[in-house]
Amino acid sequence: MTSLGLPFQITASDGAARRGRLATAHGVVNTPAFMTVGTAGTVKGLTTEQVAATGAEIILGNTYHLMLRPGAERVAAQGGLHRFMNWPGPILTDSGGFQVMSLEELRKLTEDGVTFRSHLDGTPYDLTPERAVEIQALLDADITMVLDECTPFPATEEVARHSMERSMRWAARSKAAFIRRPGYGLFGIVQGSIYPALRVKSAAALREIGFDGYAVGGLAVGEGQQAMFETLDVTVPELPVERPRYLMGVGKPADIVGAVRRGIDMFDCVLPTRSGRTGQAFTRRAVLNLMNARHRDDPRPLDPDCPCPTCADYGRAYLHHLFKAKEMLGPILLTRHNLHHYQQLMASLRQAIEAGRLEDFVAEFERQQAEGDLAPL
Amino acid sequence: MTSLGLPFQITASDGAARRGRLATAHGVVNTPAFMTVGTAGTVKGLTTEQVAATGAEIILGNTYHLMLRPGAERVAAQGGLHRFMNWPGPILTDSGGFQVMSLEELRKLTEDGVTFRSHLDGTPYDLTPERAVEIQALLDADITMVLDECTPFPATEEVARHSMERSMRWAARSKAAFIRRPGYGLFGIVQGSIYPALRVKSAAALREIGFDGYAVGGLAVGEGQQAMFETLDVTVPELPVERPRYLMGVGKPADIVGAVRRGIDMFDCVLPTRSGRTGQAFTRRAVLNLMNARHRDDPRPLDPDCPCPTCADYGRAYLHHLFKAKEMLGPILLTRHNLHHYQQLMASLRQAIEAGRLEDFVAEFERQQAEGDLAPL
Repeated sequence: MTSLGLPFQITASDGAARRGRLATAHGVVNTPAFMTVGTAGTVKGLTTEQVAATGAEIILGNTYHLMLRPGAERVAAQGGLHRFMNWPGPILTDSGGFQVMSLEELRKLTEDGVTFRSHLDGTPYDLTPERAVEIQALLDADITMVLDECTPFPATEEVARHSMERSMRWAARSKAAFIRRPGYGLFGIVQGSIYPALRVKSAAALREIGFDGYAVGGLAVGEGQQAMFETLDVTVPELPVERPRYLMGVGKPADIVGAVRRGIDMFDCVLPTRSGRTGQAFTRRAVLNLMNARHRDDPRPLDPDCPCPTCADYGRAYLHHLFKAKEMLGPILLTRHNLHHYQQLMASLRQAIEAGRLEDFVAEFERQQAEGDLAPL
Repeated sequence: MTSLGLPFQITASDGAARRGRLATAHGVVNTPAFMTVGTAGTVKGLTTEQVAATGAEIILGNTYHLMLRPGAERVAAQGGLHRFMNWPGPILTDSGGFQVMSLEELRKLTEDGVTFRSHLDGTPYDLTPERAVEIQALLDADITMVLDECTPFPATEEVARHSMERSMRWAARSKAAFIRRPGYGLFGIVQGSIYPALRVKSAAALREIGFDGYAVGGLAVGEGQQAMFETLDVTVPELPVERPRYLMGVGKPADIVGAVRRGIDMFDCVLPTRSGRTGQAFTRRAVLNLMNARHRDDPRPLDPDCPCPTCADYGRAYLHHLFKAKEMLGPILLTRHNLHHYQQLMASLRQAIEAGRLEDFVAEFERQQAEGDLAPL
């Protein structure tokens, strides 16, 4: 496959890391990019103007949630997901597989696909590679993900191999079902658990099919940062250099920094949004828990160097008050800050790659993290 | 009392209705004004930029909630309520009396004041006229309300008289405790239930003490719109013409229109914010319940003539989806719309008074309401 579907231009590189521009039907995504998660057609608590103001260029929608409610056909009738949720920029949708696989009691997996019952009302659904592609087309996703089988972790090599091989067959079916349009693309997903030989085989199978981009799936599932990085070390070199690479569901800032060094271009994670809702704020040196009484009388912003409107306008004492009083504005302000923090990190990574000083940036990043009192999330 | 504390200029009038400018320490309030309720130091779900964008010039804070959490002294240590919550404009605070009186099991009322236990943790508190004034000074309220005894409704004339007389003694104590500063003012509150003679007596007692503004309290408690308007008809003529008049806790758009015609300058009500959180949207012709399935496939905005960003950017189908999915953005977008709707109503009333065509405006307003399918709230 050529870059006809989704032009991707690498404008600079530094070691394995790349600085790129991905041109979708709804606008350009500068990479390395963090994709803000907007599960059910909304980034929880924020208007899309507020999301854009964090620096986000692309958001992620969840096929599973949207196919159940309001339904893919209903979104299509409203003009697609961009118009429905008032996000004019690029959207990537997942395939729904990850959520469906986790419905252990409610789903049945066959070679054809997955049948499952809605966790909302028990309605039965089929999700096949073809239907997953169709749903994402109805949503009008700029980037469609193939349906894959999410291999449990841990898994024996035998289980992981069978699972990966089925995912590769599904990837081929997804490719056959995908209708190409300019500015729209389909990404394959490398599986194979933590087994290097399987990852290499999976990457080769996807290259053979040909995709607009290549995701690394099945990580950030409990294997730990070292195993994740080791898997990237064997997988990324097997991916076509000219196509974007997406590490799914990752991660903490240190995970992202390490993966960018290894050549990853795209990320998504619920961490900045979900932890913002529970009162946890990312700063360069620490993760602050705003529920903690030590913030009760502290007038300082979350991070004095952060340019976000939460840090410009509000002190920790006020944010603590909002969380204690269970006021909606607490999650709103912290989500906004955390997303700014993540986008600032990505902007800094892009600048460092452009300047050819990524290793300096990483050293300074690691020094700040080591000095801080990083609380466990 | 002269206008030294809080300059109020009446720039136009039309019948009993007035168009005015109230100059507080934190800015001018154009009247007739609707004050957005920000109970616990936040207008639920909105940033203060979003509140200002609705057209709001003044917000209301609740002494009861803030004295319990985070505490008035704590807010003062953070630079006052304006700075704490990032609202640079005028703030009116209530006295806490209304909420305390409703704690039936937990409070004890004496001539000195009220003792009560926090509904949060049982901590005992005293609230006297002097302490209510002190708390509001700690919060740095531009407009302080006297502590009054909220007469139950219905009440016999004898009960209402005793209650009103105590409120007048408390009003005098509040006045004595209030430290005057330029741009800050103290409002008295007329009581007397629905008894005209008591209302007249109460107004006379307050005039005798002298205040920067005069509120009408004890209405919107179940007496109905007709009794409310009849009470205004006997009360408003007894209030000093040169001072602002505030109808507390009111109300629906039709209540506000009727009260403006009768000479009221200021209002506050939880209706646009609270009903926004439960899925109800005010439009000129109807109150829409966004939970209703009839909105499921409707791409239209809430009100095609509304200039608010919710109506510019989102359709009913999407808002319905957000409420069905219990997404925070639903309450946020509807609160924003409802506050815009209220502020548009106030702007229209101000323009109509300036143009000397208030009765035409009222006739058109009533025609639209009669034509619409106003759902009960």
